[in-house]
Amino acid sequence: MKRKLLTMRKVAILGIGQTSVSEHWDKSLRELAGEAIFAALNDSGRQTAQALYVGNMLSGSLNQQEHLGVMVADWVGFTPGEALKVEAACGSGAAALRAGVIAVASGELDSAMVVGVEKMTDSKPPETTSALATAADADWEAAEGLTFVAINALIMRRYMREFGWKHTDFAPFSINAHANAEHNPNARLPFPITLGEYKAARMVAEPINLLDASPIGDGAAAVLLVPAEGLQGRHHHSVVIEASSCATDSLAVHDRRDPISLAAAARSAQIAFNQAGIVPAEVDFFELHDAFSIMSVLSLEACGFAERGQGPRLGLDGHILPTGSIPITTLGGLKARGHPVGATGVYQVVESVTQLRGLAGAAQIADAKTALVQNIGGSGATVYTHILLRS
Amino acid sequence: MKRKLLTMRKVAILGIGQTSVSEHWDKSLRELAGEAIFAALNDSGRQTAQALYVGNMLSGSLNQQEHLGVMVADWVGFTPGEALKVEAACGSGAAALRAGVIAVASGELDSAMVVGVEKMTDSKPPETTSALATAADADWEAAEGLTFVAINALIMRRYMREFGWKHTDFAPFSINAHANAEHNPNARLPFPITLGEYKAARMVAEPINLLDASPIGDGAAAVLLVPAEGLQGRHHHSVVIEASSCATDSLAVHDRRDPISLAAAARSAQIAFNQAGIVPAEVDFFELHDAFSIMSVLSLEACGFAERGQGPRLGLDGHILPTGSIPITTLGGLKARGHPVGATGVYQVVESVTQLRGLAGAAQIADAKTALVQNIGGSGATVYTHILLRS
Repeated sequence: MKRKLLTMRKVAILGIGQTSVSEHWDKSLRELAGEAIFAALNDSGRQTAQALYVGNMLSGSLNQQEHLGVMVADWVGFTPGEALKVEAACGSGAAALRAGVIAVASGELDSAMVVGVEKMTDSKPPETTSALATAADADWEAAEGLTFVAINALIMRRYMREFGWKHTDFAPFSINAHANAEHNPNARLPFPITLGEYKAARMVAEPINLLDASPIGDGAAAVLLVPAEGLQGRHHHSVVIEASSCATDSLAVHDRRDPISLAAAARSAQIAFNQAGIVPAEVDFFELHDAFSIMSVLSLEACGFAERGQGPRLGLDGHILPTGSIPITTLGGLKARGHPVGATGVYQVVESVTQLRGLAGAAQIADAKTALVQNIGGSGATVYTHILLRS
Repeated sequence: MKRKLLTMRKVAILGIGQTSVSEHWDKSLRELAGEAIFAALNDSGRQTAQALYVGNMLSGSLNQQEHLGVMVADWVGFTPGEALKVEAACGSGAAALRAGVIAVASGELDSAMVVGVEKMTDSKPPETTSALATAADADWEAAEGLTFVAINALIMRRYMREFGWKHTDFAPFSINAHANAEHNPNARLPFPITLGEYKAARMVAEPINLLDASPIGDGAAAVLLVPAEGLQGRHHHSVVIEASSCATDSLAVHDRRDPISLAAAARSAQIAFNQAGIVPAEVDFFELHDAFSIMSVLSLEACGFAERGQGPRLGLDGHILPTGSIPITTLGGLKARGHPVGATGVYQVVESVTQLRGLAGAAQIADAKTALVQNIGGSGATVYTHILLRS
C-alpha cells in the first residue's frame, strides 16, 4: 500500500495510436500492431523507442504465432532493442503497460512503446470460445464445460438474487456505452441502442443477453512512455501516470470468499488511490472493464463509487452518463468500442488520454483532469488499475 | 550500452528451486510450478513473495490455460499479490527473470518470485512441433512448412559449408553436455554418450541428428529475487545479478544480414559485459542456449569466446569441458538437462547459482565466481544475457 511509484521518476504518455476495432480481414497481426505503433510515434514526434512491450492473450492459439514481442519489433524497426510479450488474459494490455511503466520509472529505459494487439475474427467461433476459456481455470472451470460468458452469467444471476435487481436494471450500462461509442470513430458498434432492443436481445447465457456482452474484435492500441521530467511546457499533449497497481484473486470464481464482489479490483484500486493521494470523488471519469454489464456494476462497487449491492443505482440514476458524477465507458467501453482482449487495456488508456487532452469531440467529458482506468483479467482474477493526470 | 542496472539497487537471488525435467504424467502445470516455487521459498527461508513472474511459452496451445500468472499465484498462496506471464518463446524464462529484476531493482517490489514452467509431453508430437513453430515467423517461415529444427538445420548446413566443418566436429558439444548431466539429479538424459553413438544417431533434419537436438520435457524452475543490500554476511547463499540485458534480431532467419551469426546474442552479451564491467576472459563458466549443437557454436562466437567460424575448435580442443578455459552446459545444458522451453531460462540460472554456491557436486566448476547465462528465443531473434556473481 506504500506510494512506491512516487519514489521513482514519473512517467508520461507522450504519444497514442490505435486502429479501429473491427473485422480486419485485410490486416495481419503485425500490420495491426504496426499501425497503432506508427500512429503513437507520429503523435509523439519520436522516431523509435528503446523497448517494446506487447500485450496479447491469444496469438498462440488463434494466430499460430508466439514470440510476438520480436515479431512486432522486427516489423516496426525497433530491433535490436528489447521486446517481449506480457499476458494476463483480458488484462494483458494493462499488464504490458505496467511492465513498461516500471522499466521507464526505474531509469532502466528512457522510452518504451506499449502495444496491445489481438486478431480474433479470423477464427471459427468455437475456436474463439475455447481460446477465451483459457482465461478461466482449465482444470476446475473450463473442464466442467463452463465458457467465459457462462461464468459471468452465474455471477450475475447470483448478484440479482442476492440484491433483488431485475435484468432491465442493468440496461443503462449498455445503453450508455453504445450512446458514447457513437462519437468514437474507432468503435466496433458505433450506434445507439434502446431499452426495447436491450430487452428483446437474444439470450447468450441466462441472464446475459447479447446486449449485456461485449463483442470480440481485431485491433491494436499503443502508447509511448517516457520520463515526465523535462516535458513540462514543451509537450502540451503529455499525460502523467500517477498510479499503477496490480492485485489478484483466486482464478476459479467458486474459490472466492465472495463470488459477487471483486476483491482484487477493490485492492488494486485502493493501492492506486493511495499512490495518487486521491479519493474516488476526485475521479473525473472511469474507464472500467465492462466485458459484461454485471462487471460494470461490480467494478463501480469495488472502486468505491457505490455500496455493495447498489451498483445498478448509478446507472438508473444517470450518474454514469457523460454529464453524471462518475462517467464511465466514455468512448464506448468494451461493450461498444469492442473487446479485442489483449488490446483492450491499452485502448482504455488511449481513450483516457484523448479525454485528458480535451480531444474527445462530442464525447468529451467537461474539464477532465483525472482518469481512473481498470483492466481485468478473467472474471476478476487479475486486476490492473492506473490513474492518469492531465499534466 | 550504458551501465543502467548499476544506477538502481542491486538484486540478489536468495533462493532457488526446481523439479526434475521429465515426463511428469502425474503433475499438472500448477503442481510443477508450485513444486519449484516452494523449493525456492524453502531454500531462501522466506514464506512468500510480493509478486510472481511466470515464464512460459506454450500453456495456451498445449495446456488450454492462459492467465498463468494468477493461476500459479493462486495455487501457491501468493494472491492478492501481483502476477503475470511473460513470453519470449524459448527465451521466456529469462524474459520473466529480467522483468522481475527490473521491478526489484527499481524499488517497486521488495521481493519477486520468478518461475519458468512448461508441460509439453502430454501433447501429441505433431501438436508439439506445431506449437514450437510459433517461435518462428508464422507468415514467412512456419507457413512455408519450416519446423523449428528445420530452420536450425538450414543454419547449420550453411555454417558447415561456409567454414568447412564436418558433422562430427560438433560432437564434443553433445558429448560434454551428456557427460555433465550425469551428475545432475534433475536432468532429463543423465547418461554419457560416445562419439560412435553421436555418429550413428538417426537423422532429424539433415545435418541435425537426434544427438544434436535438445529434448523437450516437463519441468519448472524458480528463483526468489530480493534487494542485495543488507544480505551481506547473513546469507552466505546469496548470488548477485550483476548484469541483465535483452537484444533482438529479425524473427525470420532469412531476413538477417548474416544468417550464421547471432547478432542479438553478440549485442546482448556486449551490453551485459559493459554493465558488469568485465571481459569474456573473466567468465568462469557459460550456461549457453544449446537447443541444437550449432547454437552452442554460434553462441560462443557471438559472446567473444571464438572468432567467427572457429567455434567448433573450442569443443575439439577441450576448452568447453569442466576443466577447460570456458566450461559450458555444466549440468547438462538444454541437450541433456532437457529443454522445457519456457522454463529453460530459469533452469540455467538455478544451475548457475548452484555452481556459484559451490554445491554442484561432481559437476562443480572449481572456484566459480562469475557466471554468464544466455537464453535465446527463436533461432536467435530474442536474446537475454545475465551475469551472476558470487557475493
